[in-house]
Amino acid sequence: MMRALPDFDSVREAAQHIAPHVHRTPVLTCSSLDRMVNAELYFKCENFQKVGAFKFRGACNAVFHFSQEEASRGVGTHSSGNHAAALALAARLRGVQAFIVMPRDASKVKKAAVAGYGAQIFPCEPTEAGREERMAEVLKETGATFIHPSNDPLVIAGQGTAGLELLEEVSDLDVVLAPVGGGGLLSGTALAVAGLSPDTRIIGAEPEGADDAYRSLQEGRIIPSINPQTVADGLLTSLGDNTFPIIREHVEQIVTVSEEEIIAGMRHVWERMKIVIEPSAAVPVGALLGRKVDLSGLRIGVILSGGNVDLDKLPWSQG
Amino acid sequence: MMRALPDFDSVREAAQHIAPHVHRTPVLTCSSLDRMVNAELYFKCENFQKVGAFKFRGACNAVFHFSQEEASRGVGTHSSGNHAAALALAARLRGVQAFIVMPRDASKVKKAAVAGYGAQIFPCEPTEAGREERMAEVLKETGATFIHPSNDPLVIAGQGTAGLELLEEVSDLDVVLAPVGGGGLLSGTALAVAGLSPDTRIIGAEPEGADDAYRSLQEGRIIPSINPQTVADGLLTSLGDNTFPIIREHVEQIVTVSEEEIIAGMRHVWERMKIVIEPSAAVPVGALLGRKVDLSGLRIGVILSGGNVDLDKLPWSQG
Repeated sequence: MMRALPDFDSVREAAQHIAPHVHRTPVLTCSSLDRMVNAELYFKCENFQKVGAFKFRGACNAVFHFSQEEASRGVGTHSSGNHAAALALAARLRGVQAFIVMPRDASKVKKAAVAGYGAQIFPCEPTEAGREERMAEVLKETGATFIHPSNDPLVIAGQGTAGLELLEEVSDLDVVLAPVGGGGLLSGTALAVAGLSPDTRIIGAEPEGADDAYRSLQEGRIIPSINPQTVADGLLTSLGDNTFPIIREHVEQIVTVSEEEIIAGMRHVWERMKIVIEPSAAVPVGALLGRKVDLSGLRIGVILSGGNVDLDKLPWSQG
Repeated sequence: MMRALPDFDSVREAAQHIAPHVHRTPVLTCSSLDRMVNAELYFKCENFQKVGAFKFRGACNAVFHFSQEEASRGVGTHSSGNHAAALALAARLRGVQAFIVMPRDASKVKKAAVAGYGAQIFPCEPTEAGREERMAEVLKETGATFIHPSNDPLVIAGQGTAGLELLEEVSDLDVVLAPVGGGGLLSGTALAVAGLSPDTRIIGAEPEGADDAYRSLQEGRIIPSINPQTVADGLLTSLGDNTFPIIREHVEQIVTVSEEEIIAGMRHVWERMKIVIEPSAAVPVGALLGRKVDLSGLRIGVILSGGNVDLDKLPWSQG
């Protein structure tokens, strides 16, 4: 099914559609981080979103957008992370079946979370090819609609609603920072910011070890990630043909962040703000603490994308 | 200096005095914890308070209560924990000197925090006697006013303001739970709850390994802790002659919680609520998850007392 590239109106419509189902997450501030960065930071806390990540916004917008007839055949995706849980919960709320293809080696905790929301799990080989093959089979068998984790236009529009809420709550932001993996959050945020506050700059933050978006913007075409390596395991995927043009149009620049900076950013947020964020959410924080771009004296919005971490394997306690 | 036992008016006055200085912390809810406990939980998040704990409320009320002449001689206390940092920051805000007696073996992080607020640190032997002796010397030399961490009437009244804010924000609570160590928080909370909502029950939660408050209520007299052992290191101290009578009058019961239950409660809050709380704050959560008292179907306020933890030494990663 083809859908048009989403725009600002798509984000506004998404906000209306998903309002009954999502949390309006708080915007927090932290004077000690402000002092460290010499700026005013406003953190949009999607770690407090349902399923612990912004991903629920996009999944919800997609699942509630379909006609009853489409929805009744179910929805499917392949994911080992937050999108799988998000789609599973959104489907349960709509009362339809979710079919999730997950690698055989996905963690038990993640499988249990997805199954706990009532989704049906299909194990696959832990390769890109194995994943896509199994997904195609499942979609053919079930007639379910595929919902891509980041490139789906409804998903992009849904992810943009976090930025929309941030701008509604905090006026006159000079810059908004968001992490970038597949680009669903960054492109949705860009649509929201460009539509509501055209003078606000938009900057993406990406791990050095998975810098496909940085290189894609440099080259002017999508350069896929090859064997990306980063603690920010939500940012391994590459830009798609819907997210790339939006990012290219609206995003000022992508800054890349080292593993040490990501981990230091994560730890600072835990210690100073007393909130749990996952490594992917710490990438923009690492960019700020590492002074990857000079933003002194500015009012900066930061999307903290999620808070799902394995408390037995914290990155600062690894050898 | 003798001061009268604090009452509900003391708490209301404290709220006015400290309002310009403290954070009005948020009240959070969590549907998955509600389901586990089969009740409606309202968490007053003092982990988001300045210095990361409710202790700042009491310290602030004491420091800002003194006349300019009294205050100008400075304030002093002995503490290795949150009260030391709280008093140091309150003194800095008032523009007076804080003198803090800390055991020689206190962690570098804690000493650095206290020194960072501009307090003068006096190392002492890590014993009760060593601590009191050094404190007496320091008070004599400096003329500073001693502020007890829990038994000081102004401190008790200040700690009660967290409960006051909780009741102002959430109506018709059936029960309020707070942890108990020296009893400053529990007695202050009890004054606030009894004054504002007399039908609301008040329950204290205490580690099994430091159950002096439980035994004191049983025996009808203060039974000091002897060699208390618990991961909840903010709750090692014993009740005092001001906190005990207030607790005896207003608190329905004290429930005791095992180390395993405290750690499980702490981990649940981190995982489900995505916020960082310290072990002492997890004691009431452990009481609820361990069903130490039947509160099913009720509306329950829980004071999450603080969020200062050493991220390199989490209790679930210890042998």
